[in-house]
Amino acid sequence: MKIIALLTDFGYKDNFVGVMKGVILSINPQVNLVDISHGIKPQSILEAYFLLKNSYKFFPKGTVFVAVVDPGVGSKRKPVLIQTNDYFFVGPNNGIFSFLESHDIKRIIHLTNDKYFLKPVSSTFHGRDIFAPVAGFISKGVSPEEFGTPIKGMKHIEVPKPILEKDKLLGEIIYIDGFGNLISNISRNIFDKFTRGSEFEITIGKARMSKISSSYAEAKVESPIALFDSFQNLEISIKAASCSEKLGLKEGEKITIKKTAN
Amino acid sequence: MKIIALLTDFGYKDNFVGVMKGVILSINPQVNLVDISHGIKPQSILEAYFLLKNSYKFFPKGTVFVAVVDPGVGSKRKPVLIQTNDYFFVGPNNGIFSFLESHDIKRIIHLTNDKYFLKPVSSTFHGRDIFAPVAGFISKGVSPEEFGTPIKGMKHIEVPKPILEKDKLLGEIIYIDGFGNLISNISRNIFDKFTRGSEFEITIGKARMSKISSSYAEAKVESPIALFDSFQNLEISIKAASCSEKLGLKEGEKITIKKTAN
Amino acid sequence: MKIIALLTDFGYKDNFVGVMKGVILSINPQVNLVDISHGIKPQSILEAYFLLKNSYKFFPKGTVFVAVVDPGVGSKRKPVLIQTNDYFFVGPNNGIFSFLESHDIKRIIHLTNDKYFLKPVSSTFHGRDIFAPVAGFISKGVSPEEFGTPIKGMKHIEVPKPILEKDKLLGEIIYIDGFGNLISNISRNIFDKFTRGSEFEITIGKARMSKISSSYAEAKVESPIALFDSFQNLEISIKAASCSEKLGLKEGEKITIKKTAN
Repeated sequence: MKIIALLTDFGYKDNFVGVMKGVILSINPQVNLVDISHGIKPQSILEAYFLLKNSYKFFPKGTVFVAVVDPGVGSKRKPVLIQTNDYFFVGPNNGIFSFLESHDIKRIIHLTNDKYFLKPVSSTFHGRDIFAPVAGFISKGVSPEEFGTPIKGMKHIEVPKPILEKDKLLGEIIYIDGFGNLISNISRNIFDKFTRGSEFEITIGKARMSKISSSYAEAKVESPIALFDSFQNLEISIKAASCSEKLGLKEGEKITIKKTAN
Repeated sequence: MKIIALLTDFGYKDNFVGVMKGVILSINPQVNLVDISHGIKPQSILEAYFLLKNSYKFFPKGTVFVAVVDPGVGSKRKPVLIQTNDYFFVGPNNGIFSFLESHDIKRIIHLTNDKYFLKPVSSTFHGRDIFAPVAGFISKGVSPEEFGTPIKGMKHIEVPKPILEKDKLLGEIIYIDGFGNLISNISRNIFDKFTRGSEFEITIGKARMSKISSSYAEAKVESPIALFDSFQNLEISIKAASCSEKLGLKEGEKITIKKTAN
Repeated sequence: MKIIALLTDFGYKDNFVGVMKGVILSINPQVNLVDISHGIKPQSILEAYFLLKNSYKFFPKGTVFVAVVDPGVGSKRKPVLIQTNDYFFVGPNNGIFSFLESHDIKRIIHLTNDKYFLKPVSSTFHGRDIFAPVAGFISKGVSPEEFGTPIKGMKHIEVPKPILEKDKLLGEIIYIDGFGNLISNISRNIFDKFTRGSEFEITIGKARMSKISSSYAEAKVESPIALFDSFQNLEISIKAASCSEKLGLKEGEKITIKKTAN
């Protein structure tokens, strides 16, 4: 059975996601629908980007991802289908898919063929009128070229990047998960390249840590720990509590790694 | 694969919805289950009515809708199955389905045949004991008449209706969506009939608007805009913010459209 | 179609549940995935235990349950598969499954065969790396013995038990549902054995009740009522309001039943 996975900022109160699923199932009732999240902060393209980036590779080849965080709906931003070697991505061309690497992209289609849209197309809900039906038709085997015109440029968003100074690595908190863990933009890879086995000190807000823990279970109550999360990002966590609340820290907070003498 | 779509006020913390799905799948494991919303305000038949009304036509023919917002469970209100030309609706006869038009209804069955119930039937959870199993059996092809006795009267709820005065159209906010947008009971149709191309002024709380925007993207930050939402209801919205919070307005708030000289 | 039912404390904001589903569907795209709840209080093994206990029997035979409330992930607690006469349970051996009765358990397997894991196995997300793939392979028919070594001891959690004194039955609130109803550890069975038809008084906080209501609809606004919920637990409820908020009571609150002269 074909898989269609959905990611939106539509929340869990309204009927928006349910209606999108109704539209998809009207085209292909044999599809297996999966929710990645609908709890994205309203209109946060960055959160959607971050969660989808950390999710898509865990799905089977051929999965169609529909991502709708779309503050520009009804304006000039283009609705697109991106086909990679293994997957399909459907949504607004607003940077939400900018984790995809160009060598992996087979084609980007500007969705213009309204034969595959739900009509009349509204100017406020392309999730229902364009993205859902296109995903449904992809799952039925309609060829990507059918949906519109190939284009080149994928829109990129600015994701804060870690900065390497002589003796410091400067990062930033880019996501706070549902447990209140602080997720930084420093990957294990970048961290390891910087520290190269040296001792180090991690500073964030008033907290200091000088080692990487290997699991949450290692933490002592009330003391923040640093660890690499299951997606290999440096994360700050407090046992059985929201680290964000306890330390009073949010997205955008700076995190510093300094090498110390050893 | 048959579709069963669920709408309840059971929320996302408890096991009520999961248990209903377990009951359905015990009868028919080949069914595709879809959530419309479980975030209805507790016991708000009006919210459930409004969301289901705006959702069901987007689902494929033959879909079975199970709607459980049921403050009268265990009292005399009747459990019913309503078959329309295209769909099945299962739930309490408390007004939740009163958007259905009589010419579209093929039959209303009072669910009395406990052969199709989960026994013993509790007096607090008909979602599990009556509505879920009946939906499961419908999806297996059991004939509607099998489930009980045909009845006539569908219970209607009072939905506030817009009032037309000589030079004013008076409406009311009947739903606030998850983004905080204010949704009124004034449809595009009624609005157009009233304004007939004249200039107009929309008043709600302290806000005044004199045009209809075509998309959210048009809004300036902090200024409320009026637009027709994707279900053709007049809606008041503020860019990147909760309009309800910013304006301090809730369900029941009055909205007025006045024709102005042109 | 095989059913896999999921219960976690991962919430609805992050991608954790979606990623687990992606892993399962990569192994078996023909599976019907059901959410029991992901709104368990973070790291509350007791809540997970309570909801799963009240849910699993409503699912079809052969269902695979994946329960991930796992504060000890990455420590020595064992990942297990428990096969009962009718079901499979996959998760950490931390007491979450301790409602299962020993005569019903066919085997407990310590999950050690990493052939069925997602590699590299992280020390923070066994839901994705161990439990989801094992569930996927079970749904494909892989034999339980394949996944590891049979063990004996299932970890039990301490669930507060009602205490019977000469003229009193002392219970405790162990769960507060999404409506704010207070659910006690006193089952209908225990209650009936104690009262044996006598008159009684139920005391909780400042509230007193001397009868069992049969449905929510019986309640008068503002007065708490006692009733047996649909899972046969003694519950205290207030009509159209959160009983927990109105009475200011939480999990752990004591509830007393006294026999009165009749």
